[in-house]
Amino acid sequence: MGLSSNRVEDLSGHACNDSFELPISNNEPLEVHRVCLPPHKTTLQKLRQRLLEVFFPDDPLHKFKNQTCLTKFLLGLQFFFPVFEWGPQYNLKLLRADIISGFTIASLAIPQGISYAKLANLPPIIGLYSSFVPPLIYSVLGSSRHLAVGPVSIASLVMGTMLSEVVSYTEEPLLYLQLAFTATLFAGLFQASLGFFRLGFIIDFLSKATLVGFMAGAAVIVSMQQLKGLLGIIHFTSKMQIIPVLSSVFQHKDEWSWQTIVMGVCFLAFLLTTRQISTRNPKFFWLSAASPLASVILSTLIVALLKSKANGIQIIGHLSKGLNPPSMNMLYLSGPYLPLAIKTGIVSGILALTEGIAVGRTFAALKNYQVDGNKEMMAIGLMNMAGCCSSCYVTTGSFSRSAVNYNAGAQTVVSNIIMATAVLITLLFLMPLFYYTPIVILATIIITAVTGLIDFQAAFRLWKVDKLDFMACMCSFFGVLFISVPLGLAIAVGVSVFKILLHVTRPNTGVLGNIPGTQVYQNLHRYRTAVRIPSFLILAVEAPIYFANSTYLQESFIYLESICNYRVLRWIREEEERIVANKETEIKCVIIDMTAVSSIDSSGIDTICELRRTLDKRSLKLVLTNPGGNVMEKLHESDALESFGLNGIYLTVSEAVADISSFWKKEPELPI
Amino acid sequence: MGLSSNRVEDLSGHACNDSFELPISNNEPLEVHRVCLPPHKTTLQKLRQRLLEVFFPDDPLHKFKNQTCLTKFLLGLQFFFPVFEWGPQYNLKLLRADIISGFTIASLAIPQGISYAKLANLPPIIGLYSSFVPPLIYSVLGSSRHLAVGPVSIASLVMGTMLSEVVSYTEEPLLYLQLAFTATLFAGLFQASLGFFRLGFIIDFLSKATLVGFMAGAAVIVSMQQLKGLLGIIHFTSKMQIIPVLSSVFQHKDEWSWQTIVMGVCFLAFLLTTRQISTRNPKFFWLSAASPLASVILSTLIVALLKSKANGIQIIGHLSKGLNPPSMNMLYLSGPYLPLAIKTGIVSGILALTEGIAVGRTFAALKNYQVDGNKEMMAIGLMNMAGCCSSCYVTTGSFSRSAVNYNAGAQTVVSNIIMATAVLITLLFLMPLFYYTPIVILATIIITAVTGLIDFQAAFRLWKVDKLDFMACMCSFFGVLFISVPLGLAIAVGVSVFKILLHVTRPNTGVLGNIPGTQVYQNLHRYRTAVRIPSFLILAVEAPIYFANSTYLQESFIYLESICNYRVLRWIREEEERIVANKETEIKCVIIDMTAVSSIDSSGIDTICELRRTLDKRSLKLVLTNPGGNVMEKLHESDALESFGLNGIYLTVSEAVADISSFWKKEPELPI
Repeated sequence: MGLSSNRVEDLSGHACNDSFELPISNNEPLEVHRVCLPPHKTTLQKLRQRLLEVFFPDDPLHKFKNQTCLTKFLLGLQFFFPVFEWGPQYNLKLLRADIISGFTIASLAIPQGISYAKLANLPPIIGLYSSFVPPLIYSVLGSSRHLAVGPVSIASLVMGTMLSEVVSYTEEPLLYLQLAFTATLFAGLFQASLGFFRLGFIIDFLSKATLVGFMAGAAVIVSMQQLKGLLGIIHFTSKMQIIPVLSSVFQHKDEWSWQTIVMGVCFLAFLLTTRQISTRNPKFFWLSAASPLASVILSTLIVALLKSKANGIQIIGHLSKGLNPPSMNMLYLSGPYLPLAIKTGIVSGILALTEGIAVGRTFAALKNYQVDGNKEMMAIGLMNMAGCCSSCYVTTGSFSRSAVNYNAGAQTVVSNIIMATAVLITLLFLMPLFYYTPIVILATIIITAVTGLIDFQAAFRLWKVDKLDFMACMCSFFGVLFISVPLGLAIAVGVSVFKILLHVTRPNTGVLGNIPGTQVYQNLHRYRTAVRIPSFLILAVEAPIYFANSTYLQESFIYLESICNYRVLRWIREEEERIVANKETEIKCVIIDMTAVSSIDSSGIDTICELRRTLDKRSLKLVLTNPGGNVMEKLHESDALESFGLNGIYLTVSEAVADISSFWKKEPELPI
Repeated sequence: MGLSSNRVEDLSGHACNDSFELPISNNEPLEVHRVCLPPHKTTLQKLRQRLLEVFFPDDPLHKFKNQTCLTKFLLGLQFFFPVFEWGPQYNLKLLRADIISGFTIASLAIPQGISYAKLANLPPIIGLYSSFVPPLIYSVLGSSRHLAVGPVSIASLVMGTMLSEVVSYTEEPLLYLQLAFTATLFAGLFQASLGFFRLGFIIDFLSKATLVGFMAGAAVIVSMQQLKGLLGIIHFTSKMQIIPVLSSVFQHKDEWSWQTIVMGVCFLAFLLTTRQISTRNPKFFWLSAASPLASVILSTLIVALLKSKANGIQIIGHLSKGLNPPSMNMLYLSGPYLPLAIKTGIVSGILALTEGIAVGRTFAALKNYQVDGNKEMMAIGLMNMAGCCSSCYVTTGSFSRSAVNYNAGAQTVVSNIIMATAVLITLLFLMPLFYYTPIVILATIIITAVTGLIDFQAAFRLWKVDKLDFMACMCSFFGVLFISVPLGLAIAVGVSVFKILLHVTRPNTGVLGNIPGTQVYQNLHRYRTAVRIPSFLILAVEAPIYFANSTYLQESFIYLESICNYRVLRWIREEEERIVANKETEIKCVIIDMTAVSSIDSSGIDTICELRRTLDKRSLKLVLTNPGGNVMEKLHESDALESFGLNGIYLTVSEAVADISSFWKKEPELPI
């Protein structure tokens, strides 16, 4: 063939010169560039690079390079305890901002803590305990400056659901508590180990679409569950699917209490109105921040004053004063319910983690600082492990309270310490004040909080942009609503993963044509001005060629054979059989543009080789253009590269077309 | 900005003109091409196209278009019963070839049938029954011309393993038989429904790497199990993991029979030698094809002659004459073992299908005809459903017998009918001849067959080409060897899918530079001659941007911010901090080359928008080049396209660089 033998070298050699001119006497000299192999690496180097990329994409140790021992030690201290990073620069001005925001979130955290504990079917006091120890630990370990730590609705809900389906709190309160603390331990262990083993990317598989559906489903279920408190029902199902909950509401019509309903509806209206105002006008953020505490105080006063007349209204009753009691001895580490505790811990742990990390990242992005996902996971995990030993249940960064924290001007994680102090004071001195707090008010706080999680706009946007994402969203919504929380989530993750696999299994392929006057080749279907080059069939494959699609591609390619018989060619059929009608475009060369083939595996290479053999039999030439570094490497290692040899691989489609055409002009008689 | 307002139109309009010249007075006129949206389609059209692509990629109905009713009926008949396609052209010459190959495979099918039935712990006669009915049914429905149908080692092994671990044939023979037929029914149902619902692509997920490892593991296990027959042991474990099998061999040393061992070793040597000769020289294929029958005849003769002296050798014993008895009444459709039967059916069914389809495709490729995967699945499924009613167990196309069939010159599926006829004659008249056939000879036939499944070369090639494929291979090998067949397979499929996800989760990214003298932009790391364009940072992302990698990409992009502070930039760090050292290359524009981004989802779009906002804050410009049709559509639907607007999207990197540079030259003072 007329191509310079120089091109053989660069298939194995690595030091490529720039370009060279073909020794073909032509009107204008044709430049052909080589396709380079990526720099050579040994298997070990490759493995190392791969592992680094998977587990340390952020290269956390780069700061430590070229530093003295002392600096390294200080950097290490800062690495593990971010408090040393911002601590030295802390000043009075920051403290003032933190005190304001700390008390603001405390006013929210106390009623929410009590409510969420009820959501998890735990005694209200556990919610306050959980708002005291974990924030203190997070303030030492955490790297987000705006995260307000404490119990959150999703994790409480999931824990409550999963435990209540097996053990009833009213019947076996001690066992239930034990299981809750044990689940918290496993949640913490799981979270910390995800961070420690740098597996943080696992939570990326809970896509936004999945979460939108999940949160909406959970919100609906929880709101329904709260009808218990809102209507004053005493006997209620512990199941979490929508059908038993609704039937339970109407089965116990006789238990409905009008006083409770009136109070609940009034305060619900108040809370929803203040939230609406704050959403519309961010200046009034304090309205929605203060309204839960205001509701609690107001309703407690009303019930205390109308003591004798409001006997239909259930109240919280006696709460013991005092700090978190140790709960190490309550961990349930062997017995028949251990698998339940582990499962509950992992599911609620992963959800808590997702919320915490997402919230942390959101506010970090707003203030332009970085939150290290894996470090955050370890912080949240350690916080929960410490929590389970001090009567706390699963905690994480709460979205609603963090937003309030941010809006109230929090500067550092000190606002969490302030909040914990406020909770401490409450625990030590103010507990008797909650005696008359009506349970219905907790129900209204929960309903207000969770209905805020239903994001219609996001769902609509998913529908508009990506139908399959919308499907994942709906799957998790209905899965949570009608089946169960973990199964609904699993289905949604399955749909999301299936979507990725589907994209790989059925890759886009297209026929390319030249855009006149340029060297650009684009899809004929999309660019109407692009023209087909006679004698060439240029195909683009837009996905990695893997085992999962190699059969599909092979079968598609097999149709190529039929070209010679002027029979069916899939791509050509789609192109309205243009070629069949037009004899002059008889195809002599098939070019596969590999630009978008980002990776290939052994089955993919077999497919390419198989295709080559098939086309060879029909004396059709197969040319690859612009294979990526990965693909070149694999082709080289499998010796397929040598079989393509001299003029089988080009850098661009236009060079391939020009070079092969000029060769045909030169030797028109020879078969290719 | 200096760009013509024409470009706005083509973001929403679809009828693009070719190109236009920029109204910038420049030395040479700069051509800027538009990025087109793909032709507009409604949601329903898109859904339809998507579903067609997933389920009917081969467009099976295209033949039926524009035909008369009669032709349509004939084509339909041919479609469902391929026999009508080749039947009319059948002639004596073809028949002669088919008779020769039919008898050749019969000579192999009879001893193999008996052996494989033993492998499944079934009575030997079931193997012969299974070589009679299914081939007849396949010859009417099947579209492969060379597939030799009957029991195969893998499916027999899996069925034997899975059933024996729960039910023992020696203790409850009737129940075991019932379960075997029921499993066959479910295998058939599963196979046929995969074909019917056009879900054939599911078997593509058993990648070649997985199968190489699986077959090797199964072969080792089966060979070890055959030590029972080879050593003449009577009490043997029914477990299939390697450790109990080996310990069972040495526990029963007292049962070893020297006569059996001598006979076994001799015939094993004979069979392996003939196979070796046939492999080296394909002309002698008949040697390996005939040797099993020869061994059976020879060993039966020896045992019959030495009757009194060879009492240590176990023999098959009495086999009843006669055709397949109906077994409809033996189906076990309710009771505690039903889940076992279903599980066994599905696992053995999917493996049988994989072998059958792969073998069919292999020989079809050799003879240049097409095998429709989904139709084949239905044929194999129906054949098994019919089989379970006529005392057959799971059957499929056997690799070894199909190869013999092909080499013996089979032309059509009639060779299966000939084989079935030979089996029929055996069943009716020759059964007593097998009375003295020693069981050890069946063990040697099985060992010879299965050791042929160990493909060291393929495993070595996997290691060379793709370490992760090799890992999948090893996982399935050791999983099958030490855990169990279905779990080993599940692990291997898991590893393969994980590999795809990993590629998506951690996509390749790279910094591009211009190859001097061209408009080509390539990876700086790979093409040493490529040069960085001052003021530009050109990045390529080589994977679809999905929820699974959007966080990773976002975090990588966040480093971009630090550019302005001359701090850490991930890509730049990797590039030996070239930019940091060189002030003149201060970056003003970031170009993301989307050529290899074959798809995007809603999280991906959020990432892009987020990045745009982040860069905007730093007054850095973000430009996308060459987004694919899919991506453009999504950008358009999410209104992100409008926000990029005028000069945010270009067709090629070189046009983007040229256009933006010329604009900077024109208005050097303005901030971008």
